[in-house]
Amino acid sequence: MKPVFRRTLLLAVSLGLCGAPLSGQAQDADPLPSWSDSTVKANIIDFVLRATTEGSPDYVPEQDRIATFDNDGTLWVEKPLYAQFVFVIDRVKATANQHPQWKKKEPFKSVLDGNTEKLLTYGEKGAMALLTATHSGMTTMEFNDIVSTWLKTAKHPRFKRLYTDLTYAPMIELLEYLRVNGFKTFIVSGGGTAFMRAYTEQSYGVPPWKVVGSSGTTEFRMWDSSPTLVKLPDLLFFDDGPGKAEGINHYIGRQPIFAFGNSIGDKEMLEWTANCNGLCFMGLVHHDDAKREYAYGPDSDVGRFPVSLMEQARAHGWNVVSMKDDWKTIFSWGQSIP
Amino acid sequence: MKPVFRRTLLLAVSLGLCGAPLSGQAQDADPLPSWSDSTVKANIIDFVLRATTEGSPDYVPEQDRIATFDNDGTLWVEKPLYAQFVFVIDRVKATANQHPQWKKKEPFKSVLDGNTEKLLTYGEKGAMALLTATHSGMTTMEFNDIVSTWLKTAKHPRFKRLYTDLTYAPMIELLEYLRVNGFKTFIVSGGGTAFMRAYTEQSYGVPPWKVVGSSGTTEFRMWDSSPTLVKLPDLLFFDDGPGKAEGINHYIGRQPIFAFGNSIGDKEMLEWTANCNGLCFMGLVHHDDAKREYAYGPDSDVGRFPVSLMEQARAHGWNVVSMKDDWKTIFSWGQSIP
Repeated sequence: MKPVFRRTLLLAVSLGLCGAPLSGQAQDADPLPSWSDSTVKANIIDFVLRATTEGSPDYVPEQDRIATFDNDGTLWVEKPLYAQFVFVIDRVKATANQHPQWKKKEPFKSVLDGNTEKLLTYGEKGAMALLTATHSGMTTMEFNDIVSTWLKTAKHPRFKRLYTDLTYAPMIELLEYLRVNGFKTFIVSGGGTAFMRAYTEQSYGVPPWKVVGSSGTTEFRMWDSSPTLVKLPDLLFFDDGPGKAEGINHYIGRQPIFAFGNSIGDKEMLEWTANCNGLCFMGLVHHDDAKREYAYGPDSDVGRFPVSLMEQARAHGWNVVSMKDDWKTIFSWGQSIP
Repeated sequence: MKPVFRRTLLLAVSLGLCGAPLSGQAQDADPLPSWSDSTVKANIIDFVLRATTEGSPDYVPEQDRIATFDNDGTLWVEKPLYAQFVFVIDRVKATANQHPQWKKKEPFKSVLDGNTEKLLTYGEKGAMALLTATHSGMTTMEFNDIVSTWLKTAKHPRFKRLYTDLTYAPMIELLEYLRVNGFKTFIVSGGGTAFMRAYTEQSYGVPPWKVVGSSGTTEFRMWDSSPTLVKLPDLLFFDDGPGKAEGINHYIGRQPIFAFGNSIGDKEMLEWTANCNGLCFMGLVHHDDAKREYAYGPDSDVGRFPVSLMEQARAHGWNVVSMKDDWKTIFSWGQSIP
């Protein structure tokens, strides 16, 4: 029996569809158990029911059910530093002995001195220098191995857990709930595509070709008669802010009807999604839970979630998730209180 | 009942899986009826059975079943000119009254004079000028509408049919056969992504996010409080030759185990696929049927399928499809002899 048939059969049996009267029992189980029974949860379920009920005026054919999610701060923790930024710091330290000049050269010196505050003053230019040094000059497969190894060992400074343990359980449930209902779930992140691809399939069920992010160029080269792709220092695509709407077009080619973000970098993705002809859903994760995770913006206008974005969300009826009130559990490793 | 459940049930019932003993009858129907019972067809079926049979030493998990297909000359006709090239010519003519200077300016003058031979002498630079003039300066949605309208009216000069009628029936069967067996089918073409996306879902069952091609940049702009994406003249990605292997990495992020092409522009995609750890399949369509379609290269070393590529295919055991001998039917419009 071919796997596809066996899987279909198992699925049909497990859903109680074979030999049983057609009933709704499969739908009775709560698809979002980590979510409190709040307005946002009700809105999500209502949206999915409308979009998937044939004959409903809001019905959306399956090929148009595109859902896009920001990553840092929306699907996993982004404080005190982006995981990829920590990776960059760790890689500079791990490879410093091959680059003795870094001891005297900024922004590398600040990294090696452990002076994050000074490091951040070098801004975008400093970040690019660090990205180039740590994200190019190896093959795509080597880079994937480096990231995979790092993800298996690096621990978050506060939670003392692997970063992949600090993905958000409610969002993983939401991704799965959407997929079960025929949605195609994509990540649309300012982070590096190659970095994210090392873990998104396992952590989120999102395969590499559904990961839209920032990326550098590569070059096809024959080495010892074997083809390789070498990562080059040049930026190919920057997927943040307006770049998210542009990236959705470049990589996905269809407008989302569902989008979730958490910062000003997601503004244009949400606007692009909100420009729908029919049904659409826009969501923002509001980090307001200092006890279980972090509290930052928009109340304080600190960081990348300014008051203006919250005002825009309220004015247009976007769904703002309060991590404190709307999420029973925060992290995928299963404990909600650290 | 949710659509996903209903679909699963219908599928299970239609496959005879509900309440019936597990049998292989669903597999007995020929999945590739437009293919002659030749070696290539046997190789395809053998490959799929090995890849999908659990416990087989060649078993490939579903998430790794990536199949990539060139478009022009592999999935549809590419002679006497690429469809997109004909589109460019038609667009220059259709918009010439807005650009009076074109009457005296090459390569536009040659287009308006109908002098294709002279036009081709302007090479890559000429092509870029024409692409810029016809593929930028409008929104992504406007461009999609322009292409869709063109595809509904433009006829192939020899077959007097819409270009979408001139897709290859055997390849459409192959795409579907692979998908039914858990493969993810992608197009990886030197052609324009936005151009292809206007018809690939309907013609091939390949949605926009599985179309990898050449593309220009876009810019997110607010027009009358509505977000739009404007197509700019700058090239973002050129997806041909080595660019195909690079494009597979950028857009798909996983190495294919199955690839089909028909020209020298597919060489690196096939080499990248052939660099597999386990099972892989490389195929080339050989246009050797002047009566039903066209005959060009590699016998004559004419065009983009040189003798060297055929030699490479033979040396490495790649599957070469003879359109004359291996395909019972050529075109999707159902008649094999014009």
